[in-house]
This record gives sequence, structure tokens and C-alpha cells, in this order.
Amino acid sequence: MTTLDLMTPPATTPSTPGRRALGSDGDVLLIISPRKPAQAWIDRIEATFPGLRIIHRETSWGTKLAAGALSADEWRSVTVLLASGLSLPEPAEAPRLRYVQLISAGANVVLKRPLFTETDIIFATANGVHGPQISEWIIATFLAFNHKIPTYLEQQKQAAWKRSDVLTEDALGQRVGILGYGSIGRQTARVATALGMEVYAYTLHPRDTPESRRDDGFAPPGTGDPEGIYPTKWFSGGTRADRHAFLSSGIDLLVVATPLTDNTTHLLGAEELKLLGRTRDDGTHRAGFLSNIARGPIVETDALIDALDKGILRGAALDVTDPEPLPDGHRLWSAKNIIITPHISGSSTKYDERVLAILEDNMQRLSEGRPLANRVSRRDGY
Amino acid sequence: MTTLDLMTPPATTPSTPGRRALGSDGDVLLIISPRKPAQAWIDRIEATFPGLRIIHRETSWGTKLAAGALSADEWRSVTVLLASGLSLPEPAEAPRLRYVQLISAGANVVLKRPLFTETDIIFATANGVHGPQISEWIIATFLAFNHKIPTYLEQQKQAAWKRSDVLTEDALGQRVGILGYGSIGRQTARVATALGMEVYAYTLHPRDTPESRRDDGFAPPGTGDPEGIYPTKWFSGGTRADRHAFLSSGIDLLVVATPLTDNTTHLLGAEELKLLGRTRDDGTHRAGFLSNIARGPIVETDALIDALDKGILRGAALDVTDPEPLPDGHRLWSAKNIIITPHISGSSTKYDERVLAILEDNMQRLSEGRPLANRVSRRDGY
Repeated sequence: MTTLDLMTPPATTPSTPGRRALGSDGDVLLIISPRKPAQAWIDRIEATFPGLRIIHRETSWGTKLAAGALSADEWRSVTVLLASGLSLPEPAEAPRLRYVQLISAGANVVLKRPLFTETDIIFATANGVHGPQISEWIIATFLAFNHKIPTYLEQQKQAAWKRSDVLTEDALGQRVGILGYGSIGRQTARVATALGMEVYAYTLHPRDTPESRRDDGFAPPGTGDPEGIYPTKWFSGGTRADRHAFLSSGIDLLVVATPLTDNTTHLLGAEELKLLGRTRDDGTHRAGFLSNIARGPIVETDALIDALDKGILRGAALDVTDPEPLPDGHRLWSAKNIIITPHISGSSTKYDERVLAILEDNMQRLSEGRPLANRVSRRDGY
Repeated sequence: MTTLDLMTPPATTPSTPGRRALGSDGDVLLIISPRKPAQAWIDRIEATFPGLRIIHRETSWGTKLAAGALSADEWRSVTVLLASGLSLPEPAEAPRLRYVQLISAGANVVLKRPLFTETDIIFATANGVHGPQISEWIIATFLAFNHKIPTYLEQQKQAAWKRSDVLTEDALGQRVGILGYGSIGRQTARVATALGMEVYAYTLHPRDTPESRRDDGFAPPGTGDPEGIYPTKWFSGGTRADRHAFLSSGIDLLVVATPLTDNTTHLLGAEELKLLGRTRDDGTHRAGFLSNIARGPIVETDALIDALDKGILRGAALDVTDPEPLPDGHRLWSAKNIIITPHISGSSTKYDERVLAILEDNMQRLSEGRPLANRVSRRDGY
């Protein structure tokens, strides 16, 4: 698949089978996307990789590239491909292909494709592109709830200047528990720390060493927690007891940011929701707040409605629901102290820009023979 | 007023006229407040200042201490006083008084009182107690607006699962301009930086040196920007040209956090609002967003409504209005893309706790002869 670089590599960059400067041998970067990248990006790529040819084909994300949109010769020349899982070639069509950059955060769309199963081509996901906007959604809904913004928006429509008698419990000193410490959880931790909150992290596998707490996945510069420095306490494990230890550690805000798997389906039921919250200095109990931006079925809907109704939870913000879309008339819509949005927290005008940033970084890594960010493991399938 | 400490001070603490350990000579701390401090706080103070006697008198913040609530002998013993400006003694009544901790962020309530004008007693404000909650309000309303939370709350009431076609412009890479870089502005800068925003600061006087960018006022530990490290650009000056240079520097979010004075009344009119916003990479103009948590009259209300109506501003969040309270039927209530709350952004359950933290810190400073935080200047009156 790859041509070995026969020149002696610089001392700082160890030679690896994948090492060969992109563009050195008529390489082609094919981008299949709805919008051509900005000229500034193209100029920079061409300057960084002299000789690299960039081809763009316009296709909306949900659509497969039209047959014949690229000639067989063109396919044969492609070294790097940016595309959705729908527009992948067969292995024989693209013999020069070294690296596929997917535009989705997950890899499940390609796991059974021959280009993935029958070759050693490097696949990388767009994991990390959602970190900023989804963590903003988490912070926005939590703070807006605490500051009674939904109530005041209501009063604004009635043109009523009326202050609440109930003081605001500001975020300073509150504790956020993050279930699944990936790109979204890490950026949430950064912002929560700036707000003066304390961060507890929960991961499936233990993170006992500084090295294990690092995250090499993509995060826009200046965001996230690549070194894992924000949590003051780390929890882990796959058992019910492990999870309960985390949930009962005095959590004011629980952020659900774990993938939906068999193990996480209905992870949070009546018993778990009751564990959230903590004891105030004066000995009274303060119920917890739940934020779910992952997948609806991780939380048991009936248990959630009941917990809100009884004040076992002080509030909840959901960008995902079970069922989803949430049908008209479903009683979750009108549960007490709830904010629901229709699975839009990942929306961002900068999505394409961030995918291109991953691509650019990974092309640099490929050229230098370094491991790529967001690489899909053929063993683990993610 | 004060007794000089005749003992040789430790080498690390320079001797000053104000130096004398509190509690060493029958000192009394008088707290006039609605709620007695928590026992844990009292225990800590008594352990830190052995011999200090603490007296508490219950009075709501808006009420003067009842005549006779404290005997003349008790008043004569008071060394440190925590109170609102309403409950100050006459100078002759409290001859031992060394330091008054006010519970308000401003000092205007005491500027004409004999206890301030005729003595050298140290006065300190509660400036800084609003930093966390008001910066949360600023971030919450800005992010909620960008993520269309008001629209989705509306749809939730109609039980309608309906996604907006318009992508979210997330905060990463946006620029916040902070007019008045005090305790609120500094904590806003900390959170905005964590969100990946760029911070520009505007102050009346130039901050050209690291020393001048520091802020010794109170901020809860882990909040604010005591060293002035977050702004990447500093603007200053008192002229219209100075202000216009700042406002036209490409600001996506303008935070108004400056006191209301003759100079700041109607500081932001039609011409100024038009300067906000910036040019996108594709050459189109993106209008600015205004957040006012300071005082209503700093912004011209008619100009604001007009700018929102015409899209010269993309949105605004106001916790203060002009007039205030905003009357029923006033057209500001229904201006386009506006969020209005009834001057509640300073509300916090932790207000008392933070005032007591200032008091505790300042008592330590007083005992050690160090300058007090939030000290009111008799020359400047703040």
C-alpha cells in the first residue's frame, strides 16, 4: 500500500513503514463534501505539501458520490480521502490510498466495508469536532436553569418586571460528575473549572497514571483537557458497585457523555438518580441535576420523570430522549424542571472547518511517520 | 485611633501604624446582618484571633440597626464592624473602631458619613462578591441565545420536536470585548477563555505594564483574573476616539461592566452599537451581541431597540434597563432578539459567605499590618 522512503529520515523523526512526505510522488487528496474548502486552507495545504494535487467533488453529507463523478484514473491516483462512509471506493479502485478521514465522530458506518476489513489503510474519525458546541450546550442549559432564565423569558413575554424570591445557587463550588471523559467531557471540564466547579471523571477503564489520563484525540487548540488535569477525582469500572460509588460521591451536576452500548443502556434508573446530589453545610440535602447529551436510552425515561416530579432530581436538560424523536403529547415534554432540545447540541457552523483541521494535522503526521489522531482500531472497531 | 505595637515585629512583616494583632487587647468584632455566621466560620475566627469577642445583631440589609440594640459600652468596645452603610455609629460612639467592612460592592452610601469623612478608619467594600454569579449570567444568556434555547423552550411547551435549519455559531474563536475590567469582567474573561474565546479589555486608565494589569480586589479563590493574563489586547482612554477604537476592534460580544457615572451615561448610542461585530473569513459582516449587567442608562434604549430591529446588533441580553423597573408595555420588552431579566444577576445564596470571606481575609491583613483588600480611597471615593 505504501512506498518506503529510501532517504535517511531526520534524527528527530523515527522511520516507519508509513513515512513518505505527501506530495512527493504525484499524491492526490480527494475531498468529497458539500462545500469546497476555503481558499486559504487550500493554499496552506499546497504550500505545506508541494506537489500534492487537491480534487474536490461536491456531495451532500447524506448522499453517496454519484457514479462517474470521478474517473477510474482519478480514483487510482488518490492517496488521501476525506469522505463520509457512503462514498468509499472498493479496495481495487484506489490502490494508492493510504489514509481515509471520515467526517463522522463514530466509525460504525465503515466497520463492515471491504476498504476497512481487507486493507491496512488508516481510518480516522472526526471525533472531537463536537467538543466545543456540545459542552457549551451543557453549560448554557445548566446555568440558565440555575439563574431561572426560562422563568424570566416567560415573564418577559408578559412584560412583567418581577424578581424571584429564591436566591440563585451559583456554580462556584458545585461539583460536576462526568460520565465518559472523552472530547465533550474534557471541554466541559475545562469550562466548569473556570466557573469554579470541581470535576469528578468516570471512565470505563482505570486512569491511575498521568499517561493513562492523557487523550491524544483531536481537540481544537485551547480547548479540552489533553493531559487530564481538570478532574480532582477519577472513578472507573464496569460494575454496578463501581458506578454507584461514582454517582453517590456528592454530584451536583451529572453529565452523561458516554456512548450507547449494551452496557450503558438504562444505566441510569430510579436507584441511580436517587444517588445524585449532596449534603449542604447546614445538613440539608440538595438534589442533583442531570444533563444528557449522549443518547436517550442511557437514562430510563419513566424513572427520570418520576425523579423530577418528586424532587429527587432538581432539574434536567436533555438534548436526546427515549423515544426519539419525542412524540407529541409524550409526558416527558412537560416533566417538572426539564429543558428539552431536539438533538441539536452538535450543530456548529464550524463543523467543516474542524474536520479539515483534523485532516491537515493527520496529513502532517502521515508525512512525518507519526501516529495519526483519531485512528480507528481494527481490533476495537472505534 | 490605633495603638502601636511596641513589640518587635517578625522580620517578614514590616511594622506599620495599623499593625496590632486583633484580639490581643479585648477587641470586639461586631456583625450587623440578617443571619448569624455559620458556627464553623465563628470557630475559625475565634481560633485565628484568640481573645477576639464576636457580637452579632440581627438586622435585615435594608434596615438601620434599632436604637438601643447595642449598649454604649458595647459600641465603645468595637474594633471591627461588618454592616451596611445604614448602621454606622457616629465617630465618638466607637473610639476603638479600626476597620469597617461594608456589605455593598459600592461605597457611595458612606461617602458623606462623619465616620468616613472625619476619621482615618479603614473602610472596605464587598466588591468582588458578584463576580461568579454575574459572569455566569453573562455566559448563560450569551450561549443560550446562540444555541437558540429560548426558541426551543417555546417549542417544548408546544411539545414540538423541530430542529432549526440554522447552524449554531459556537463561541470558540469569537471575541469578547469587556468594557470595564473589574471583578465581573475578570471572571467573565476566565470563563470566556476556557470556551476558546478571545478577550479584549477596556479600562479608563492605561494598563501598559504587568503591574498595572493586576487587581488586588477580592475574588473567590480560583476565580477572576488577579494577574490580568486573559486579555490579548488592552484598550483604554476617556475620549470618544478611544472608545470607538475599542468598539470597532472586531467584537462579537460586548460586555458592559463599567460603573454608571456622568462619563458613562449614554456611552453606547446608535453610532457605537454600529461599530460592534466583525468581518467573517468569507467577507460578510457579522453583527455584534450586547450584554449589559451594569446600569441601564449606559446604553441609549431607543438606539438599542433600533439596532436590534435593523439587525445592526444580532442580539442583546439585559439585566438592567433604562427606565428601571421597565414598565409594562414598554417596547424594549418585545425588541427583536432580546433577553431581559429584572436586575437579578447578582443574586446568590453565597453572598453572605463571600462577604465573610472578605472580612476574614482583611482581619488577617489588619493583624499583620498589610494593606486591606477593597479599601475605599478617601481621595477617589471608591
